Amino acid sequence: MSNRLYTFVGGTSGRWRVRSQRPFIGPALAPVSFVDVIHANAVAPEGGWSLRGITSNERYVERVEKQELVAKQQGLGRPEASYAALIPIRKTSAWWALTQDERRAVFEEQSQHMRIGMKYLPAIARRLHHCRDLADAEAFDFLTWFEYAPADEAAFEDLLAALRASREWEYVDHEVDIRLVRHEA
Amino acid sequence: MSNRLYTFVGGTSGRWRVRSQRPFIGPALAPVSFVDVIHANAVAPEGGWSLRGITSNERYVERVEKQELVAKQQGLGRPEASYAALIPIRKTSAWWALTQDERRAVFEEQSQHMRIGMKYLPAIARRLHHCRDLADAEAFDFLTWFEYAPADEAAFEDLLAALRASREWEYVDHEVDIRLVRHEA
Repeated sequence: MSNRLYTFVGGTSGRWRVRSQRPFIGPALAPVSFVDVIHANAVAPEGGWSLRGITSNERYVERVEKQELVAKQQGLGRPEASYAALIPIRKTSAWWALTQDERRAVFEEQSQHMRIGMKYLPAIARRLHHCRDLADAEAFDFLTWFEYAPADEAAFEDLLAALRASREWEYVDHEVDIRLVRHEA
Repeated sequence: MSNRLYTFVGGTSGRWRVRSQRPFIGPALAPVSFVDVIHANAVAPEGGWSLRGITSNERYVERVEKQELVAKQQGLGRPEASYAALIPIRKTSAWWALTQDERRAVFEEQSQHMRIGMKYLPAIARRLHHCRDLADAEAFDFLTWFEYAPADEAAFEDLLAALRASREWEYVDHEVDIRLVRHEA
């Protein structure tokens, strides 16, 4: 098993309690009350779901951007970051048929994806998981996990609104928005 | 199962007979006499091996290059292309730590990877399979499958020699070279 594989398990127990769960584009996921983040493969519990993704090399970031990212970003697991969001998305076949220069142009030059994310650092930490090249056909192409303090939820809404208004999002045909709070057992 | 998944199975039977099998960089694979190309997941036969990879979107090709590629390349399965080669490679962690612009610079601007491949079209057909982002940890990062007519084997040697002499190949730490001939049952 790759040590870069994560499974997000939605069910009736877990470390993160669901505050809200709604489809933004396309169909809903089965409603669940808790989500667990497992650093391994894991199966869906009865009535729930599991979404798998793998952390990988960056596909668009250039060196000067990387330096700025590394300087500003914070890791997951900060004690004050008791809110989280899981945003699974799938992109259209038209997106995947673009060449690298065309995808990069939409990603950054037209959509300012990096600029938007950078603006909300270090408050909002994130980890991207790729699903498209797993051996099993997955429902989504990407799973992004965000962590932030409750006081930064308005900033998180701004970040999502900016991305969703971008040219890049014209290529998204399935998106679910799951908000969570850390569950102290 | 993703319909982009392929398994190369080395064993004692299969559609392609092994003419030679040798490590070019790093350890050898268990010697086998035949290879099968399965468009699905498949397990290793006893004493043999299975290598899995997934076809995916292109990571470096730009639009003008893509147009030239599409205009020149031929598909797999040409009757005259009775020779094949399977070249599994792994790249170092230093490669994967490069940013996109740096990898592209090595790939094309310094290594002329695309130019080298283009020079041997349409004689040498190829399909690239990615292994790095499969859920299971795989021994290699890429599996490239080539098909060509026996008369083009010298051209194929030239192509490999040019790639292996390139800056990009300084990042390859495991490479095996398996030559095959179609086996008429």
